[in-house]
This record gives sequence, C-alpha cells and structure tokens, in this order.
Amino acid sequence: MASSGGVDLDEVYSFALDLAKHAGKLLDDAWRARCDGGLQSDHVEKESAVDLVTQTDEEAFIKQQIASKFPSHKFIGEETYSKGGSKEYLIGHEPTWCIDPLDGTVNYIHIFPMFCVSIGFILDGEPVIGVINAPFLNQTFSACRGKGAWLNGTQRLPLIRNPIPPMPENAPKGCVFSCEWGKDRRDQPDGNLHRKVESFLNMAAEVGGREGKGGMVHGVRSLGSATLDLAYCAMGAFDIWWEGGCWEWDVAAGICLLKEAGGLVTTANPPADPSTARIEDAKLGGRLYLAIRPAGDTEHETARQGQERTVREVWRRVRHLDYPRPGV
Amino acid sequence: MASSGGVDLDEVYSFALDLAKHAGKLLDDAWRARCDGGLQSDHVEKESAVDLVTQTDEEAFIKQQIASKFPSHKFIGEETYSKGGSKEYLIGHEPTWCIDPLDGTVNYIHIFPMFCVSIGFILDGEPVIGVINAPFLNQTFSACRGKGAWLNGTQRLPLIRNPIPPMPENAPKGCVFSCEWGKDRRDQPDGNLHRKVESFLNMAAEVGGREGKGGMVHGVRSLGSATLDLAYCAMGAFDIWWEGGCWEWDVAAGICLLKEAGGLVTTANPPADPSTARIEDAKLGGRLYLAIRPAGDTEHETARQGQERTVREVWRRVRHLDYPRPGV
Repeated sequence: MASSGGVDLDEVYSFALDLAKHAGKLLDDAWRARCDGGLQSDHVEKESAVDLVTQTDEEAFIKQQIASKFPSHKFIGEETYSKGGSKEYLIGHEPTWCIDPLDGTVNYIHIFPMFCVSIGFILDGEPVIGVINAPFLNQTFSACRGKGAWLNGTQRLPLIRNPIPPMPENAPKGCVFSCEWGKDRRDQPDGNLHRKVESFLNMAAEVGGREGKGGMVHGVRSLGSATLDLAYCAMGAFDIWWEGGCWEWDVAAGICLLKEAGGLVTTANPPADPSTARIEDAKLGGRLYLAIRPAGDTEHETARQGQERTVREVWRRVRHLDYPRPGV
Repeated sequence: MASSGGVDLDEVYSFALDLAKHAGKLLDDAWRARCDGGLQSDHVEKESAVDLVTQTDEEAFIKQQIASKFPSHKFIGEETYSKGGSKEYLIGHEPTWCIDPLDGTVNYIHIFPMFCVSIGFILDGEPVIGVINAPFLNQTFSACRGKGAWLNGTQRLPLIRNPIPPMPENAPKGCVFSCEWGKDRRDQPDGNLHRKVESFLNMAAEVGGREGKGGMVHGVRSLGSATLDLAYCAMGAFDIWWEGGCWEWDVAAGICLLKEAGGLVTTANPPADPSTARIEDAKLGGRLYLAIRPAGDTEHETARQGQERTVREVWRRVRHLDYPRPGV
C-alpha cells in the first residue's frame, strides 16, 4: 500500500480511474444525444448554453462522488471556483482534488474530438495523481506518483522508450511546438494576442530569420485543450508546449502525467537571463507554463540537460505574457 | 448497381473501404513497432528516414492492390508523383485513383495521432469516392457520390443534423477556424508565412480590431493534416478551413467527403471583389482551398447562402497566398 500522510494513494488512484471513466461516459452521452437533438436556431449560442449545463452537471457529479468516498478531502473545480468570484489560489497542504469537468469546451460545443475530463489529486501542493479521459478519442491518460504515466492503462508513456529519444540537437528545430490562441483577443499593440503571435512566428520561422530568433520547428499545433496539450507532451508527440492563461484545474492532472513520464514544466515567461537562470518547476497556479517532453540521455548530455537547453532556446524566442494571479 | 461511364461505383467504393482499412493497419503496425524499436540517436532525422520508408512501402502496397483489381485505372500517388519531378497536373477524364499513403507525416514521425491514409477516386476530374482512415484515432471517414458521408460507416456526417445548424449569423464570429502553418517558413516581408500569420491574426482578433478585419473566431486550430482538416469540416467540427500549398492527393478524398456531407470548397485566394464575385468550386489541383462546413437553412437564408456569406467574410480577412501550379 502506497501511503502518503494518511492517504492511501493506491485507493485514490483506483477511484480516480473509475471516476474519470464514468465522467467521460457522461460527456460522451451528452454529445451523442446532441447529435440527434433539436437545436432550432443560433448554433453556437444555444449550444454554449447546452454545454454549460453539461459542464455544471458534470462537475456536480464528480464533486458528489468524491465527497461520498473521501468526505475529508478538499475539492476545487472550475465551476465552483468560478462562481466564487475571487481568483485566489486555494490549494494548500491538505489532500485536494482539482478538477476540470470539461477541458476543451469550444471543441465540445463544436464536437471536435479534442475534449476531456481532467481529474487531479494534490498532496502538499503537488499533483500526485492525474487521470484524463478523452471519450471521443477513446484515450485515457493516467499517472500516479512512482507508478509511471500510461495511455489506456497498457502503453507506458512516452510511447517511444527503447530508448527514449533525446531532445533534438538544434531544438527547437525538429520539435513539434504546441500553442494556443486563447480567449484574450484584444487587438492592443502589446497585448497578449500580439505577444503570442510574435512568439509563434519566432518559433516557426526559418533558422536565421526573425533577427536570429527563427526556430524552424517541425510543426506548429493548436488543439484548443491545455490538458490534452500536456497529455501529448507526456506521450512524446509534442516536444514543447508554451501557454499562458490557463488555471490549475486545466493543468493539475496533466502536470502529474508529464512529470511521471519524465517531462519538465517551468514558467512560460523568460527570466531576465534566459541562458543562465535556474530552471524551476512551474507554479501550479501561476497560469504560465512551458512544458518539455520526456527525453533520453546522450553521450554528451543528460535528459535534464537536453530539456533545459530546450527551455532556454524557447525562452530566447518568446515574449512575456500578462496573465495576473494575485498571491502566487 | 451505380454505374458511371462503365465504372461500377459500388464495387469501387467497397474496394476502397477495404483498401483503406488494410493500409491504415500497415501504418498502425509501423508506429507500434517503432515504439519498441531501437532508434539510437537523432530523433527526427532517423525517424524521418524510417517514415519515408513506411510511406514508400505504403504507397507501393496501395498501388499494387489497385493495379491488380482495376488494371485499366490510372494511379496518382504522392510518392510516385514526387519522383517524377514535374509538377504538372495529371488528372483527366479517365477513372483515376488519387492517393496519399500518409497524410500528416510530421505527426506520424512524432506519433501524434492526427495522421491518416487518404484514398480518392476520380471520374471526369471530380472526386466521387473518398475514404480516409486515421488508425490511431479509430476513425474512418468515407463517402461515395449520392450516398452521403460517414464516420466509421455508422454515423452520418455532419454529426449534428436534426437539423443541421446554419452558419453563425456573424460568421466568422462563432466559428472554429482551422489553418496550417505549413512548410514555407521563409522570413520574407511579404512571403507566405507572413501572409498566413496576418490572415490568422485577422480571423482571431476581436470584432472591431485589425482595422475592421477582426473576425473573433471561436477557436483557431492547427492539426498538421489537410486531409483531417477537411474530414473535420465534413463532420461539422470545423466551420472554416483555409489553406494553401497542399496537393491533389492531400485533398481528393476529403473534398469528396465534404461535398457529400453538404459542405462547400472554393479557392483560398480572395478575388478582386470578394463581396460580389461568383463563388466557384476549388480546382482540385489548384493548391488553394477554402472549405466551409455543411450548413442548414434558416427562414431568411438557404444553406448555400450562409456558406457563401461566410466565404466572403473570410475572403475579406485573408491575404493572397503564393503557391504556383503551372497549367491549372
């Protein structure tokens, strides 16, 4: 039995897997019902309403299941949190569930398969269990501290692991770069939208371009789900994910998954000296994330060194983003 | 029996479905073998080599299967075509297979699930059968002229169809916009990369922003597969796909699928007068595509009127792209 501070992690993990399966089934049933539904007029408006109902019901279900199984545990979910109004960071040392009942809401509204339920369990402020279920994709990602990260319970992550490929020698060249346009679309000269686009362009442009910032990544991907971005980093499919603006429920399960797979997650915002600054773990509630996939060692470099080299190369090319979070 | 100019379309459709299943299985086996493989050093370089082998073998398999079943049919595949050197458009009136053995090559190299085999069958220059198999996603999209478009043979496309939602009243606002960064990453002031990014930014920015061009789309997505972009438009998940630079084998099956679902595909490049120009079907080999999902009628507007209105609103916001194609 894996026990941490009175919590039986095996029991919690097994419960979380089961819960994600049931919660995913609810999402799946709801979109399938919608296919045969009768939405009379404005597509997006009406469906948004439908999906907000789904999201609220979904979170209430998850919250109730947890409360009846683990009545002493704290619960933080997107819905309950948002209703509170304050944007204070509420995660402390106690056993805490951090839940996104529906990540990729826009995808879900449009029935693009990249949506999921995300269930994270946190001890002493660290995500130690993460389960992500994307029902349309038939993909469940799961991890528990010390037990590795898994796809559908059978394929260990990262997928390529004999050996795990090192970071490309000239990263970000050769890397798949995942990023999101987000909701802040204000057309302000130095607003987040323009800072993001400038960063994307630097990562994408040919080596030598953009006054030396061109990164010539192998591909640029935008899925519309922070949780799945992290899952695909853990899988090894995305080499780099860079994003600002998400919240702890978007990333708690994914960060656990990525770390168990051997990945790294630090802040999106470059420090004053990107080439020498100490690379620290991202703050769970910091709203700024730069994730690097699991990597292998080479003769000349450890996995961690390759990941840190990649972090610094990304920091050289991206702008600061402005997503405040009081008190974190 | 559906017969078109001596061709039994039912027979061809059934054969294409079977072929896509087998070809997809080969792709699936190859990436799974790679997970346990032994790639020693440079990730991307070595795997690119591995995947080019996969791609060539895959196309040879498909070509051989077609040749033995339909020896009189013409065959155009990415691999065989590329080796020819000339970029001439080779599709005429005769029964022709137009194949991409592996669409989403970068995704496949990195084992991101968005890759597929794309099998199109063309009569009199028009794609009349399209089958797309994305094995990691367990998704097969298929269509045959007059028989509708289908997901996994059981769910008719678009998914939401009782009724099919009309285009949003203020499209592109409310739309999911799919676009790709592509391979042309030259950092030239008015090159394709900058024209694309300017167009993406117009589509994404708030309404009223970008000197009136802000489109405030609901989401921006980039998957790295033109074929799957079209498939998700046919499904109704993407409202708009805008792209330049792909070839006929990337889109032949997808265009058939989209049209059978009720979608529209025209040119990516805005005409001199976007608000009044006649909206013509995209040229299969034109390398420039703007796709709009299937739509429903409203009291005030037919489906086609809503789609054309959306086309014009996109044209207002995007730049010309420069992807030449002699003789088309």
